[in-house]
Amino acid sequence: MFKYDQLSPLYTDLYQLTMSQAYFLNGRHEAPASFDYFFRKLPFSGGYVIFTGLDELLGMIATLRFRDSDLAYLKKLGFRDDFLAYLETFSFKGDIFGMQEGEIVFPAEPLLRVDGTLLEGQLIETLLLNILNYQSLIATKASRIRLVSGHRTLSDFGLRRAQSFGAISGSRAACIGGFDTTSNVFAASIYGLTPSGTMAHSFIECFDDELEAFRKYADAFPDSCILLIDTYDTLKSGLPNAITVAKELEAKGHKMKAIRLDSGDLAYLSKKVRQILNKHGLHYVKIVVSNQLDEDLIKSLLDQHAPIDIFGVGTSMIIGRPEGALDGVYKLVESDHLPRLKISDNVQKTTLPGKKKVFRFTDKEGNYYADCVGLDDEDIPQKMIHPFEKEKSLDLAGIDSHELFICHMANGNPLKSPTPVKELRERVTEHLALLPPEHKRFTYPHIYKVGITKKLSDLRNSLLSKHRQYFQSPDTIQASE
Amino acid sequence: MFKYDQLSPLYTDLYQLTMSQAYFLNGRHEAPASFDYFFRKLPFSGGYVIFTGLDELLGMIATLRFRDSDLAYLKKLGFRDDFLAYLETFSFKGDIFGMQEGEIVFPAEPLLRVDGTLLEGQLIETLLLNILNYQSLIATKASRIRLVSGHRTLSDFGLRRAQSFGAISGSRAACIGGFDTTSNVFAASIYGLTPSGTMAHSFIECFDDELEAFRKYADAFPDSCILLIDTYDTLKSGLPNAITVAKELEAKGHKMKAIRLDSGDLAYLSKKVRQILNKHGLHYVKIVVSNQLDEDLIKSLLDQHAPIDIFGVGTSMIIGRPEGALDGVYKLVESDHLPRLKISDNVQKTTLPGKKKVFRFTDKEGNYYADCVGLDDEDIPQKMIHPFEKEKSLDLAGIDSHELFICHMANGNPLKSPTPVKELRERVTEHLALLPPEHKRFTYPHIYKVGITKKLSDLRNSLLSKHRQYFQSPDTIQASE
Repeated sequence: MFKYDQLSPLYTDLYQLTMSQAYFLNGRHEAPASFDYFFRKLPFSGGYVIFTGLDELLGMIATLRFRDSDLAYLKKLGFRDDFLAYLETFSFKGDIFGMQEGEIVFPAEPLLRVDGTLLEGQLIETLLLNILNYQSLIATKASRIRLVSGHRTLSDFGLRRAQSFGAISGSRAACIGGFDTTSNVFAASIYGLTPSGTMAHSFIECFDDELEAFRKYADAFPDSCILLIDTYDTLKSGLPNAITVAKELEAKGHKMKAIRLDSGDLAYLSKKVRQILNKHGLHYVKIVVSNQLDEDLIKSLLDQHAPIDIFGVGTSMIIGRPEGALDGVYKLVESDHLPRLKISDNVQKTTLPGKKKVFRFTDKEGNYYADCVGLDDEDIPQKMIHPFEKEKSLDLAGIDSHELFICHMANGNPLKSPTPVKELRERVTEHLALLPPEHKRFTYPHIYKVGITKKLSDLRNSLLSKHRQYFQSPDTIQASE
Repeated sequence: MFKYDQLSPLYTDLYQLTMSQAYFLNGRHEAPASFDYFFRKLPFSGGYVIFTGLDELLGMIATLRFRDSDLAYLKKLGFRDDFLAYLETFSFKGDIFGMQEGEIVFPAEPLLRVDGTLLEGQLIETLLLNILNYQSLIATKASRIRLVSGHRTLSDFGLRRAQSFGAISGSRAACIGGFDTTSNVFAASIYGLTPSGTMAHSFIECFDDELEAFRKYADAFPDSCILLIDTYDTLKSGLPNAITVAKELEAKGHKMKAIRLDSGDLAYLSKKVRQILNKHGLHYVKIVVSNQLDEDLIKSLLDQHAPIDIFGVGTSMIIGRPEGALDGVYKLVESDHLPRLKISDNVQKTTLPGKKKVFRFTDKEGNYYADCVGLDDEDIPQKMIHPFEKEKSLDLAGIDSHELFICHMANGNPLKSPTPVKELRERVTEHLALLPPEHKRFTYPHIYKVGITKKLSDLRNSLLSKHRQYFQSPDTIQASE
């Protein structure tokens, strides 16, 4: 299951297929078109997003084919035979440009551009949004939890409360965003993540007493055992029994790895447990905590100097609370070599037309300063304009910069094999270190500057005024009351 | 992809496998054990949950097998050869009892009971929680949207913002909870749902003008076309162009299906659009709206008498905002034929021990009155006790009742084939009609009464006092300061 080459192109919105048939009937399906992927709103009231999911997406797009059963289903829905015959030969042969996976990104700037035919662009839209929106949300959430946790170990415990099979790529994204391990064995097996686990209350309850259960578990895993000590009474029962077993392990030349707290006041209990473990010479036994953790709770625990070594984080991380979704969208920006625009009464929802790329400006130390969106053929800009308030501008002359867009896929072929998760995680760590702290602050983070070039601004304005003139003409008001 | 028989048993938490190896080494893996699935907190500040996902889960459990590649991975992780040889022969051979899929359920009562070996019970836990928690959440959310929408058509537009592959079973759950159609073609194809769709802004933008785009789409789908009219200007451009095309379709003997609004003030625009369509004799053209809808927004639109026929609901429904997760848990309640208990300082988190079942009490019209949890061998109770406040009780003598637990799986075999989604949806409608309105109210819904029998209460109290005596003995305080 979940192999790229088994993904059905039916994993899309019906309208992508109906629009494709309409393009096909009008001979427009092979017209060249470009689409942008971007988002508008930062999740978690935060200052950034980590762009995640790209390598998986590229693998899926490269191998997307309609199987006989897919075509038979579409025929049943009433699609035309000539169109289905075309789909039978379909594979994505376009180009994909954009940010690298693991890049730190911001609202309003394009993250990815798909250059292909109209039909290709439509047929991959829903898949692209489905994969990138979720993984980027989760990597961003995980990175926030990493930011407050410092060097402590973070383990993904989310599988049981995840949104069904979303869990699989969720665990991948968590590890890219900064988690060390996951309880999700399947995700670990396919992505090369480090699986980890402790024990459950049920293990303890099904033995006659807690000490016996601890002994049996320690026998089975003498060098990696983590004992859950809150089944009956943490300080009166779980801890003394764990200490007994730790000493028995010592006598046999082993070391207990950790104890785990899953209820009660974790700040109070972790301090108490640490103190008692140390008194018994068990300084090496680590403390794992879990139970409805998120970045705020972890920060509070650490602000209270709770001596915790490992955090198991489940629901809040794997579902990306509170938003639960990144509002990423995918918009047509060019077709038939003409720039295209989606107009909205809300200026922030009016799209940026044309094939574009992104420049990142940095200070002398390489720290991120501002991003500027320009047209594909532009040189490094000397100045950028606010994307929605054209009287605001920022001088960029003499500031270091580099381009963020690279080619990921050419003629339907990914240009490199997927980057291992471990490397992506390191990339995120390096990139986040270059983002100034005020953008990483949890409370009212400083807004990172994203602007557009004058040429792009002029293009948008000219398209806008063309449309405005049209609607100011009395001929166009045909059906008002 | 996503076939039951391809689901890997590695889709679980690592500790299920480590605990299983420890059971195996101690000869405890085939000890008989029972586990309960239940939840504690109602989502959406609502009054009920719809139990959903069961048929899928049963299919997955029945076919769960370790493949060679799974075993090879576990070997790499350090699992023992004798244990892996046992897993190679593993299949779930236990029994599953519980509520039917589509039942209206409440906190604290068991929804499902798994009777098998300790190893079987552990190995399916994570999968069970992952499938049932999400689908029950989404069916519940969908049913709330159905409650406010009356007879209007509801379409799931969630795929692009769903939590990756969670979308697949999310669309299933949405249709069980009361949605009519889904944009998710893949989910429609595997579950027999009705796919539906409209058109996107991109289709309109890639033609030279909106009228041409509308004509081309109408040519391709003359009897099912839904035109999106807000790309440039809803009232000045989209609507008049749609009317032109509707009249052209009429001249050719066709009828336009609908127009769609995706931005702006939907109450104002839908009224204006309805009025103008009607003035042109296009009473039959329906109005579809979308854009960040949820049950509150739909209620507000309908309270304002917005003449909307079809609601397209995406993000909020498919991710179950705001909670995003049902807090369902799975707890050991019996092993080696002995009732087991998980104690907590928080009495509401102390489990109900023993093999149990649920009685539902109804008034003369069959409306739901109260649920009582009893032990498996009990007759209809005459009285029930509050699960956490033992001085509170409710007289049940002479009140109609029926048992909610049936056997779903015996010796690892599902007792019937999966129920079609359409039937499950009808079942939900029928069941919800029997739930008194005060429990379906959105604001401070009346709490449905769930109690326990005296025999169950006595059992729990006797186990609790056994544990309390143990901790009051001075011998057990070994490691305090």
